[in-house]
Amino acid sequence: MDEILSYIQGNKERYFAELKELLAIPSISTNPENGPDMQRCAQWMADQMRIIGLQNVKLFPTAGHPIVYGEWLGAPGQPTVLIYGHYDVQPVEPLELWTSPPFEATVRENRLYARGSADDKGQVFIHFKGIEAFLKIKGSLPVNLKLLIEGEEEIGSTNLGAFVEEQKDLLSADLVLISDSSMFGENTPSICYGLRGLSYMQVDVVGPNKDLHSGSFGGAVHNPIQALAEIVSRLHDRNGRVTIPRFYDDVRPLTRREREAFKKLPWSDRKFAGELGVRQLYGEKGFTTLERLWARPTLECNGIWGGFTGEGAKTVLPSKASAKISMRLVPDQSSTKVARLFERHIKKLAPKSVQTKTTLLHGGEPAITPIDSPGVTAAVAALRKGFGKTPLYQREGGSIPIVVQFKEMLGIDTVLLGFGQPDENAHAPNEFFNLDHFFGGIRTIVHFFNELPGHMHGPRKKR
Amino acid sequence: MDEILSYIQGNKERYFAELKELLAIPSISTNPENGPDMQRCAQWMADQMRIIGLQNVKLFPTAGHPIVYGEWLGAPGQPTVLIYGHYDVQPVEPLELWTSPPFEATVRENRLYARGSADDKGQVFIHFKGIEAFLKIKGSLPVNLKLLIEGEEEIGSTNLGAFVEEQKDLLSADLVLISDSSMFGENTPSICYGLRGLSYMQVDVVGPNKDLHSGSFGGAVHNPIQALAEIVSRLHDRNGRVTIPRFYDDVRPLTRREREAFKKLPWSDRKFAGELGVRQLYGEKGFTTLERLWARPTLECNGIWGGFTGEGAKTVLPSKASAKISMRLVPDQSSTKVARLFERHIKKLAPKSVQTKTTLLHGGEPAITPIDSPGVTAAVAALRKGFGKTPLYQREGGSIPIVVQFKEMLGIDTVLLGFGQPDENAHAPNEFFNLDHFFGGIRTIVHFFNELPGHMHGPRKKR
Repeated sequence: MDEILSYIQGNKERYFAELKELLAIPSISTNPENGPDMQRCAQWMADQMRIIGLQNVKLFPTAGHPIVYGEWLGAPGQPTVLIYGHYDVQPVEPLELWTSPPFEATVRENRLYARGSADDKGQVFIHFKGIEAFLKIKGSLPVNLKLLIEGEEEIGSTNLGAFVEEQKDLLSADLVLISDSSMFGENTPSICYGLRGLSYMQVDVVGPNKDLHSGSFGGAVHNPIQALAEIVSRLHDRNGRVTIPRFYDDVRPLTRREREAFKKLPWSDRKFAGELGVRQLYGEKGFTTLERLWARPTLECNGIWGGFTGEGAKTVLPSKASAKISMRLVPDQSSTKVARLFERHIKKLAPKSVQTKTTLLHGGEPAITPIDSPGVTAAVAALRKGFGKTPLYQREGGSIPIVVQFKEMLGIDTVLLGFGQPDENAHAPNEFFNLDHFFGGIRTIVHFFNELPGHMHGPRKKR
Repeated sequence: MDEILSYIQGNKERYFAELKELLAIPSISTNPENGPDMQRCAQWMADQMRIIGLQNVKLFPTAGHPIVYGEWLGAPGQPTVLIYGHYDVQPVEPLELWTSPPFEATVRENRLYARGSADDKGQVFIHFKGIEAFLKIKGSLPVNLKLLIEGEEEIGSTNLGAFVEEQKDLLSADLVLISDSSMFGENTPSICYGLRGLSYMQVDVVGPNKDLHSGSFGGAVHNPIQALAEIVSRLHDRNGRVTIPRFYDDVRPLTRREREAFKKLPWSDRKFAGELGVRQLYGEKGFTTLERLWARPTLECNGIWGGFTGEGAKTVLPSKASAKISMRLVPDQSSTKVARLFERHIKKLAPKSVQTKTTLLHGGEPAITPIDSPGVTAAVAALRKGFGKTPLYQREGGSIPIVVQFKEMLGIDTVLLGFGQPDENAHAPNEFFNLDHFFGGIRTIVHFFNELPGHMHGPRKKR
């Protein structure tokens, strides 16, 4: 292993140059005008796979953006790891809040700033470099690998499910490995054993059939902005609980062991509030902040718009107002069931003076991975060696819907080996990737490949 | 008068051509990029004044858009009328809802569609053509005229007050005549004796100091969109009353005569709701629709925005959300006092978990003109002759702040001789001007000039 680690140490500059090239491609999956960039990014991924020594590299077209696949199957009898990641990124608006351009990776204070640096191109790149180091030095890997890199994670992985379903044989493996989440904190390695799911909705409220002059009509018609505000304001009660009937019915309660594990994590509400610049936190009564973030379902308004939003004053009473509202889900909630409950509740809340339309924009299920599964124990050992610290156990507030699909379609668990950090601004301006995590990540990945066979064959057989 | 009326009849085609030219200038005062158009439109107005025979025509520069002035003072001993109008127009968004381009005046079903056709370029043009007809045929007018056409009415007439204050002598007159409002209905002439005032506010709600990932942070921070929705939803109570303490303190109650006059107007709530496409009207309990629109103060959300508002799904928990909220005021409310009450109320409603900022964007006072003043009685006589019908008395829900300034600065009342109609889409897509009103308006104006001296000298002296 020393030789491999030296190789990694010796190639840092080149890694940077390559990663900058990757991060320069504006692979925003939700924008139709970035279609050619998506193609270019997929091609970059495929070329890179070939360069590092993967075989059977292919671009699979989909109804949306292509899926990139590559494999190395030269370790018969050893476990097969399916590595999943995504090359698409979130939009970059509001652009004026970026300190450096989102697609020109820039290092400041040991952080690499760029859209996709942490979510998820930078983390996919870690795997590439771990594989490269192993194959370059040893000529082989201790495990079999299959890489599946998609381009639609940020828009709900629309076409991935069908692909996995179709390609069950191609993708068959012993476990999935994903690096698309955060460690607990800066240089605080942790292993993530749970993810929240998501039901992302749009609510449109329509009042009068056209925009009206607010002087001539104000006071006699229910203003759709007001009606929408009334609806949104009634989605939480005074205790910060979501008011949708039966919303909490399927929530798996936290075990005492989990609550205690969370309490061991280094955490300060005051520091958290200070970092976010708020005087007071907000959330569901009866739960700590980490419990609210990881183990409780929540509802957030992601966007709202209606009427005149430009500079100056336009006295309009608009015809329509809309909101994007998403719910984060925890085991054992179902995204489609929650979407139905939401729609029913909105209908009930809507006054007769307006019309409402509710649309499910996308959904994903929550997930939990057993802490004592061999993939997790191998990951814990690898993190200890890669970062020189004992990792902590945590959950993650975000969603990786594909984890559930892998479980359902391929029957295998996912190990979430994330190298981001919580304040990395994923989905916001000034996204960055901590460079210590980047190099610690590459070291952890090579250790993981090295550790996994022992954990799969060893402890499991003893049981 | 017959000769004058024949002249008007004979020049219809030319009027159209000229008006189309005027309406083609995109004089949107709120958009900085339309600055040159504003200049061009002011110049067009000045040229037109010279063409129809006005004297002393001048463009007065201001800190914003220029003011156009012209006069005819050849009737010594006769009353002097100050005609006010504006050449600026509202923005045209959303453009996709216009059937024909907003700056290409198009006739469909006896209506002239264009931004500014009714509010207010088309109505100013009526005065031009009335003056032209009189001077062309008679060589003189029965009254003295001063025309004051500004370019900032749609952005709060920011620089007009100072101009009027400075030019008191130039503008001195016996009454103000404004055509910038609507008749009660299609071919239903009416005289408007009251206007609502306006306090137009912006509320900004700031939560976390940056946009956050709604998965990683959702449930632990007060979402500013939610906080804003909570605030907006609490600005009305269950009875549709505005909840701002002391908001109704200075409201002058409707007299029994007014309530009865309003009941005489042809009105159907069902028809009104049907035209607007709403199943149910909304408003302050205990008042009829016309009372709500004309004689009760109201509060409307004119715009709201925050977070992701594009296509698709972005899982952001935004840092900020904003709303434009305006209050329509009635006598004897004060726009600055109401703005202060609003600001105080918002502060009280805002939860500690967010910060709010309230800004007064602009304000104007409500106004009432005596029904038995000579200007109004002359207008009633002129409308009867111009349209061949006895006009009704009404109020108007919108605001013309300058009416209050003329009263305060020049000490004179304003006669509101509006030729629009309520569904004309002022401030909205597909603004139009009814062509019967256009020609009836020109006839009414020449009758008004002819009637006024008798009403001023006659009845007034008898008292």
